[in-house]
Amino acid sequence: MDLLSVIKIGGNIIDDEAKLKAFLAQFAAIKGRKILVHGGGKLATKLAATLGVQQQLVEGRRITDAETLKIVTMVYAGFINKNIVAQLQALGCNALGLTGADGNALKAHKRGQDARGDGIDYGYVGDVDSVDSEFLAGLLRQGKTLVFAPITHDGKGQLLNTNADTIAQEIAKGLSADFEVSLVYSFEKSGVLQNADDDSSVIHRIDRASYARLKEQQVIFAGMIPKLDNAFAALDSGVGKVIIGKAEDLPSLLAGQAGTTIVHE
Amino acid sequence: MDLLSVIKIGGNIIDDEAKLKAFLAQFAAIKGRKILVHGGGKLATKLAATLGVQQQLVEGRRITDAETLKIVTMVYAGFINKNIVAQLQALGCNALGLTGADGNALKAHKRGQDARGDGIDYGYVGDVDSVDSEFLAGLLRQGKTLVFAPITHDGKGQLLNTNADTIAQEIAKGLSADFEVSLVYSFEKSGVLQNADDDSSVIHRIDRASYARLKEQQVIFAGMIPKLDNAFAALDSGVGKVIIGKAEDLPSLLAGQAGTTIVHE
Repeated sequence: MDLLSVIKIGGNIIDDEAKLKAFLAQFAAIKGRKILVHGGGKLATKLAATLGVQQQLVEGRRITDAETLKIVTMVYAGFINKNIVAQLQALGCNALGLTGADGNALKAHKRGQDARGDGIDYGYVGDVDSVDSEFLAGLLRQGKTLVFAPITHDGKGQLLNTNADTIAQEIAKGLSADFEVSLVYSFEKSGVLQNADDDSSVIHRIDRASYARLKEQQVIFAGMIPKLDNAFAALDSGVGKVIIGKAEDLPSLLAGQAGTTIVHE
Repeated sequence: MDLLSVIKIGGNIIDDEAKLKAFLAQFAAIKGRKILVHGGGKLATKLAATLGVQQQLVEGRRITDAETLKIVTMVYAGFINKNIVAQLQALGCNALGLTGADGNALKAHKRGQDARGDGIDYGYVGDVDSVDSEFLAGLLRQGKTLVFAPITHDGKGQLLNTNADTIAQEIAKGLSADFEVSLVYSFEKSGVLQNADDDSSVIHRIDRASYARLKEQQVIFAGMIPKLDNAFAALDSGVGKVIIGKAEDLPSLLAGQAGTTIVHE
């Protein structure tokens, strides 16, 4: 099967023009099929502040009201997505920018109030129901590199703000029947750390057995647990491997020489 | 050959939620392959005003500086494009939103100062060089309806603000080898008028011979001349017919029962 890399980058890369440029050069050089999923960044927050749109936070969670949805659609699907696409084109990488609404690539539903048992109405936030993997696989086979903005739709005309990690995971799962998929989550740290304060203490490989041990020893705890649970869920759905590490290390991450690689066993 | 309708709508439709909704319902119902090209609208101007970005006008022409480019990319490629796509999806029309940068669909170059002999530097404005008709034809044959925002790129990483009429024309020309193309320019009037003050005096059909006569008689003058010159240039490049009329009359325009149809002879 053809190799496919699905790579999610966060705001720390998007907000830094030089970092983004360096990352895109490395991304464009990846061999095989590839998909980039980008999150937001500070630009949406800044634009909201300039426009006087109050960011609603309920118990520390951002609520997507109608005005915020408009802003994230402009910033994520417009400014960020199209600038990444244009930069990749300049690097000889035939990029195509998409939201979940485009070609009905990712259909979602508006998260119901209390869907997470926390009683919070997140507003125009989407939970993904389906991926049109045939459509996406066809574009990849035509040599297109897909660049996803974290926006989906409900099929009834409503756009929905959607977590970029979730989009990357759903796409990776959806395409795992057609490709041998590596799913890369890039974040601020060098990988899953043995010692949270030491960025050089990366655990290079985690499988189910070692994951159980690391949880027991409380080396892995708090926010890292849902991330790894998601990684194993992706593996259960056919994704070949999940890699967690720094975007700056992209080639080494894919080569298994940096970051944490999570595998079934 | 398959039929293809390439339809350009202007700001008067985009700025009016109810009009846009009604238009999209008619658009979704068109038989055969179809492409929608949308222009801007007042939203970009409003956003620029709110953000305190001065709109530069030189001799009545808007200049696209870096800040304005950012705004039109957000509004055209983000907000307007994705909302149209989501609304079409709700109507059962499998829409896919694109800029010229996406898949390198339309490559352009930055208009040089004095390119038009008027000594004006238009800023980040693109003149189209090429259309990837193979890519677009492939998407159409897969049943996708394409929705273009008026943004292109130069292949060197620069996005460019580009006239929507020109984009519609270049796409229509580029696809005329693969499809029998009808190019529709929708605007505020019911068509080319015999009497500029009487919206019911639509000239239903114009060919080269009648165009020459109408110019001689000064029935067609001023701003209408470049529009019609462009229409004949499109016909010369293989477009089947060009139709000018009101977006509200879309089904009748395509049926030749409203608007002005421009044909070779």
